[in-house]
Amino acid sequence: MKWNDRRLLDLFGIEHPILQAPMAGAVSPQMAIAASEAGALGSIPAAMLTPETLRGELQIVKQGTARPINVNFFVHDDPVPDDKRETGWRKRLEAYYGELGLAADAGRNAPTRAPFSAAMCDVVLEFKPRLVSFHFGMPDPALLKRVKDAGLLVTSSATSAEEARWLEDHGCDVVIAQGNEAGGHRGMFLNDDISRQAGTMALVPQVVDAVKVPVIAAGGIGDGRGIVAALALGAAGVQIGTAFLLTPEAKTSALHRAALKQAHDNSTTLTNVFTGRPARGIVNRYVREVGPMCPEAPQFPLAAGASQPMRAAGEARGSSDFTPLWSGQAPTFAREMPAADLIATLVKETEAVMGRLSS
Amino acid sequence: MKWNDRRLLDLFGIEHPILQAPMAGAVSPQMAIAASEAGALGSIPAAMLTPETLRGELQIVKQGTARPINVNFFVHDDPVPDDKRETGWRKRLEAYYGELGLAADAGRNAPTRAPFSAAMCDVVLEFKPRLVSFHFGMPDPALLKRVKDAGLLVTSSATSAEEARWLEDHGCDVVIAQGNEAGGHRGMFLNDDISRQAGTMALVPQVVDAVKVPVIAAGGIGDGRGIVAALALGAAGVQIGTAFLLTPEAKTSALHRAALKQAHDNSTTLTNVFTGRPARGIVNRYVREVGPMCPEAPQFPLAAGASQPMRAAGEARGSSDFTPLWSGQAPTFAREMPAADLIATLVKETEAVMGRLSS
Repeated sequence: MKWNDRRLLDLFGIEHPILQAPMAGAVSPQMAIAASEAGALGSIPAAMLTPETLRGELQIVKQGTARPINVNFFVHDDPVPDDKRETGWRKRLEAYYGELGLAADAGRNAPTRAPFSAAMCDVVLEFKPRLVSFHFGMPDPALLKRVKDAGLLVTSSATSAEEARWLEDHGCDVVIAQGNEAGGHRGMFLNDDISRQAGTMALVPQVVDAVKVPVIAAGGIGDGRGIVAALALGAAGVQIGTAFLLTPEAKTSALHRAALKQAHDNSTTLTNVFTGRPARGIVNRYVREVGPMCPEAPQFPLAAGASQPMRAAGEARGSSDFTPLWSGQAPTFAREMPAADLIATLVKETEAVMGRLSS
Repeated sequence: MKWNDRRLLDLFGIEHPILQAPMAGAVSPQMAIAASEAGALGSIPAAMLTPETLRGELQIVKQGTARPINVNFFVHDDPVPDDKRETGWRKRLEAYYGELGLAADAGRNAPTRAPFSAAMCDVVLEFKPRLVSFHFGMPDPALLKRVKDAGLLVTSSATSAEEARWLEDHGCDVVIAQGNEAGGHRGMFLNDDISRQAGTMALVPQVVDAVKVPVIAAGGIGDGRGIVAALALGAAGVQIGTAFLLTPEAKTSALHRAALKQAHDNSTTLTNVFTGRPARGIVNRYVREVGPMCPEAPQFPLAAGASQPMRAAGEARGSSDFTPLWSGQAPTFAREMPAADLIATLVKETEAVMGRLSS
């Protein structure tokens, strides 16, 4: 396939302007390898890894492909523990703890999502991925300088034109316009009002008009129709997540896979009950009863301390009632095929849609 | 411009697959005439008209153009007055009534939005517009039969694939996929959970996959980029509203125009404080302080009884604090140009985007 817009191809050294989205907990090194080998940009999500486990994954990737990859980090502020809030949260979840037979203090000091740090930066500089992507804004300027001085490209997610301008002003080489359709955590960082978040159709062209750097469209894109639509809107490429969740390379659990296969366009919502920050997933019992947005949830990512044991106990009983079932608004485009085949299929579909439009 | 997909052109007898959206309170007969004369499908919104005022508008349209038009009706259930709820609502608004110097019972028996009725159906059959569009589902089967027996085409808005299938099963010749970006009232009728509403990028292809009839994309589309994106997603055409709100033919007030010119991608939200049903508009003081969603608001459209006098009193002081500032999520694409020029510009932009994609 001949791509007219070569901005991302030249910048990243890839064949197709498609980023396999970094989905923390769901992406394996094998998925990133397969995506990059197929000509897209594979991504490793580091948000739930330690510097050591990240190093291990990047070693696997390095052995699997010499092609460019992306490594993604969360850049939230370290949370301030708040005993009163934690107590209130556990009180809110008390009945579930009883039902699931959990000890009242389960998960109280559990390890959690860690932001980008000097130790993580060391690992990045050891492997030098082509792109480093951030979520929830940008990292500490000193760390960013180390990344940029090493010649690595950086990007982050904007959920508004205002955030896109901010990211461009703060050193992003590319900006991801994350429409409201996107699964997982909203990247919002200048605003916390989820009711105002724009959909991809409205967001992308307004972000394109607001910045000079190339824009990657994300949110609700899962087939060739969405890819061509994103390019029409002015995006230089797309980031696709949910469509990969049923590939064999995905670490998606059997319960999560089953939920995705049943889901449709209005099965998901933004909820903070799993981690404390709004993230899009399929509505289940926990989201319905405690959320979708619960003001008592502790600061991100501390809410996960008390919710993770519920998930584990539920799953041990074969139930996804308390499982974060991350998904964007186009779950019907998730495909049960190897990640490389999915990339090839997306490219073929794109050609077909281009042909339909221009014939 | 040569359109590859001729489904709507042939069905409606128009030159461009663009519907000027029926925006109750903002569309004048002159706008519909200009849109239809320019080759698009002009629309007259009847939701805030009586049979007599609708007849008057359609007579003006008939004198202004022999081309096809669309007439739009709300098809909500007649609300059941609820004194207790009305009292609670007025209690909630009491402080504003004091501030604005309004009598406690202002607007108590004000006329309001009326659903499609036998009398409205008589007017429709008198003028026989090419298309009759509905919002909030479909009308009473007996009335629908009269419309269809007269050979008129019918459509309605779907906010999910499920609603689209329902509309196809209930006689729609075309379905409008109303993405979450769209301004004004959400057409949702099988579900009332606004948190699950899909954006246009995700909704349109999933609706296209769900029905056999042609799909019109709506929500967040305001320039040629959006039009080509919608066609890429599989839509047969687009419905565009907000982009017309700054045309001279629009009845948009000066205060509303000023707000639109300041607005951007994350200025709007879904709110029920004006009418009782969720509708997208620019956030102002009233929306911020009482909404955006207020559980005390009476059933649609009764909430407008108490809120309309606040709007009038605010506007008399030059304030839009209590004014419904309807807008979709792409207000930056609203153009200060005659409606006919806007249609011509949209077509030219579409050609340019097609050229960029296929060159």
